[in-house]
Amino acid sequence: MQTLEKTHPKLQELKTRLSEINDIESAASLLYWDQATYMPPGGAAARGRQLATLRHIAHTKFTDPAIGQLLEDLSSYETSLPPDSDEASLIRVTRRDYERAVKIPADFTARFSQHSTETYEVWAKARSANDFAAVQPYLEKTLELSRELANFFPGYEHIADPLIAEADYGMKATSVRELFAELRQQLVPIVEAISAQPVIDASCLHQHFPEAEQIAFSLKVIEKLGYDFQRGRQDKTLHPFMTKFSTGDVRITTRIRENDLNEGLFSTIHETGHALYEQGVNRDFEATPLAGGTSSGVHESQSRLWENMVGRSRPFWKFFYPQLQAQFPQQLGDVALETFYRAINKVERSLIRTDADEVTYNLHVMIRFDLELQLLEGTLAVRDLPQAWNERYRSDLGIVPPNDAHGVLQDVHWYGGMIGGMFQGYTLGNLMSAQFFQAALQAHPHISTEIEQGNFDTLHNWLKTNIYQHGRKYTAAEIVELATGKALSIEPFIAYIRRKFGELYSL
Amino acid sequence: MQTLEKTHPKLQELKTRLSEINDIESAASLLYWDQATYMPPGGAAARGRQLATLRHIAHTKFTDPAIGQLLEDLSSYETSLPPDSDEASLIRVTRRDYERAVKIPADFTARFSQHSTETYEVWAKARSANDFAAVQPYLEKTLELSRELANFFPGYEHIADPLIAEADYGMKATSVRELFAELRQQLVPIVEAISAQPVIDASCLHQHFPEAEQIAFSLKVIEKLGYDFQRGRQDKTLHPFMTKFSTGDVRITTRIRENDLNEGLFSTIHETGHALYEQGVNRDFEATPLAGGTSSGVHESQSRLWENMVGRSRPFWKFFYPQLQAQFPQQLGDVALETFYRAINKVERSLIRTDADEVTYNLHVMIRFDLELQLLEGTLAVRDLPQAWNERYRSDLGIVPPNDAHGVLQDVHWYGGMIGGMFQGYTLGNLMSAQFFQAALQAHPHISTEIEQGNFDTLHNWLKTNIYQHGRKYTAAEIVELATGKALSIEPFIAYIRRKFGELYSL
Repeated sequence: MQTLEKTHPKLQELKTRLSEINDIESAASLLYWDQATYMPPGGAAARGRQLATLRHIAHTKFTDPAIGQLLEDLSSYETSLPPDSDEASLIRVTRRDYERAVKIPADFTARFSQHSTETYEVWAKARSANDFAAVQPYLEKTLELSRELANFFPGYEHIADPLIAEADYGMKATSVRELFAELRQQLVPIVEAISAQPVIDASCLHQHFPEAEQIAFSLKVIEKLGYDFQRGRQDKTLHPFMTKFSTGDVRITTRIRENDLNEGLFSTIHETGHALYEQGVNRDFEATPLAGGTSSGVHESQSRLWENMVGRSRPFWKFFYPQLQAQFPQQLGDVALETFYRAINKVERSLIRTDADEVTYNLHVMIRFDLELQLLEGTLAVRDLPQAWNERYRSDLGIVPPNDAHGVLQDVHWYGGMIGGMFQGYTLGNLMSAQFFQAALQAHPHISTEIEQGNFDTLHNWLKTNIYQHGRKYTAAEIVELATGKALSIEPFIAYIRRKFGELYSL
Repeated sequence: MQTLEKTHPKLQELKTRLSEINDIESAASLLYWDQATYMPPGGAAARGRQLATLRHIAHTKFTDPAIGQLLEDLSSYETSLPPDSDEASLIRVTRRDYERAVKIPADFTARFSQHSTETYEVWAKARSANDFAAVQPYLEKTLELSRELANFFPGYEHIADPLIAEADYGMKATSVRELFAELRQQLVPIVEAISAQPVIDASCLHQHFPEAEQIAFSLKVIEKLGYDFQRGRQDKTLHPFMTKFSTGDVRITTRIRENDLNEGLFSTIHETGHALYEQGVNRDFEATPLAGGTSSGVHESQSRLWENMVGRSRPFWKFFYPQLQAQFPQQLGDVALETFYRAINKVERSLIRTDADEVTYNLHVMIRFDLELQLLEGTLAVRDLPQAWNERYRSDLGIVPPNDAHGVLQDVHWYGGMIGGMFQGYTLGNLMSAQFFQAALQAHPHISTEIEQGNFDTLHNWLKTNIYQHGRKYTAAEIVELATGKALSIEPFIAYIRRKFGELYSL
């Protein structure tokens, strides 16, 4: 950003307004963080109201016609600037957000939000009771509302496009579908080949690992990775997430299972990946729409890069395994590094997306993405969804859920949000993670050696320079092109999977 | 509150607006709580801005002329209701707050707030460096601003009155001064008499008491007292406080010193007293100006009643001391109950208000109150304040601070807020606590026996019924009259002190 004196006065006015809106949104994020970490049960009712109030105020202030007028007044100033300057980017990204926000009527947002809250509650019970029928009418209404939402953005190519654009601006149903079809074609035979091999013994991960010691170890790991505890902290929660209240306060949360070393450790590294992205954004962007990850896919690329490409790699554990053994001498003292490495990379045809390994994970995601599109297109009815779900699990993963709780009811996304745009980011992120990692290794071949020595600086700096610092200045497609010199493709990911798991499973 | 259907539509509209304002203020309180408990250092800069933004929005929304119009429109409805009805009270208290808020220009608030922040920073350094001269010009400006603030409320009897009214509505400089003069006259000879007696040995409190065990014990205690952990929680902080985000979420914070059992335990009970008040407010008042303690004095009466009248009493420790010994067998196993009881009630002429015992505490407070009035009246200049301070310590407490750090620089109040209205609440609270406790014991003489058995229900219920449930419906003076049948006086407090410490010090 230019200094105050040099900035266009209208841009200064815009930034003042955006900063106020950002403050309100940050307060809402803190209300949410507190709800998920420390809030006593009695606070729930008021908390829901407080969150709704703050979000409503932020929305009202952002869709104020005065913002539209400022953006219009700044048009010629914007064209006078280099498009990749910070100021031009701020005006461009704000305009994009503004134009989207004003198209959605306030009463629709209220209706949708009300419906989501109700659906969530019905779903939580329906999942426990394994009763899809109970939530079906709610999901039908969600589908209707999702279509209504899409139709506030006429002129789309596919009805899912406006919904996908919310999370992954620039991506479209057709192109994602194509990419995913290719990926699926490659992955299914790999999974089949692996399934024909002897099963890896992962029992070393399923001993008793006391919570406090797991947390102590994870914190040591993520500090080494570069997570800045002066600008962040970790707390416990039910469903781990990353959130931020400013570029100086980027927090993560975790969940520990004492009988599963995978859960706490890798979810901590996963959320740290998200946090490194946010901590790395240019601090001059503070309190503007540029301060943040650019898309759901690029964000997920960072959590998955650190979790999988780094955290589940041999060089990483060459360095950390002796420390882990020292933390858990009784449990792991006699377990060889190779046994541990194989255990954390075990591939399995399983029913639950969030427990899936690197190879099968994207199959879970793509099933959901395809079903979302079919629902929106009207080629699949909500009442037929469980059957379609089970059918796809049979064909893609070779297993069939014994019930809907382990099937179509497992993920909160459709039951707490909309249908459309909820899942593609996960797989886009995995694809990008491999493409970014490959580019970093090509630029700095010694990264693997450094990782073996517990040094993550070169990798972290490459990511900061090529991705993190830019915040939302560039779209996902632009970032991929800038950082890797190529458009997004499945090749790096498939190459990575073939190399790593080919070796592990002697394919 | 009446149900929605029966409420006057204008009152419904007012309540909707008040609820929105309350939500914003609650979010600001959470931003503050987080800053004082968990926020990483990097969050500080943005947090200050976020707090200022939320408070500004809340203030703007509350001083909106539409609120004034609604209050005017509701005038005749208000007069048609019984004055002590919930609805009439809501309109009355909202009007009082509104009329005060609109008299203070927004630019003054901004100037004052900016000045306070600067003064606080200068003070923090000046206190460490024992350098009053460094902060003197800031304090002179604070005095000027405090006078300016008072003068937004012309027609006062004493210039401190509008400042006192902010914390203790209904109280006036003249009447408080009179009450305090009487109290001082009674207390000074008592302190002198005690000082002539042998010093109590409190060394049993100054052994090593590990933090975690202190916290565990305190939590057991306050649960017994009636603190509802479903609607609250305790966290650690630098300066203990109570805060609330709704009637269902009333939190306390604490600070532990491992070489002083007094600090953590009694500050926890103190904050619990504040919290019991807030947890006991009629929940129908949620999100309105009626939901909260009615004055600084009445609030302090509850923290002090639970901390001192209950927490430092023999019956209380008859029940809890065996448990405390079990928690700290090595430290207290051989210490008799009576030795412990005497230690926690040791009277001492000391320099620091926050460490003072029940007998001398009010002398500390009244020195500050008198000096505030003299500063505002212009009979004392800021540059002469340290000398006046030391002189009063000599005459009232018989000791002289060795330096300003242990004297006039010790409390944050004047350096982070205004001069005037900052201190009277502490002593008013002590006086009220004795008057309330006396009335409760008169109504239920078996309260002491119940406390010996670890049962606090009768006392807690009496306080709920007579004080807590009313929230801000009645003024402090009205609450005292309603609960005790008499106007506030020093007699119950002096009687309590004479009885308790007369016995302890064989006077």
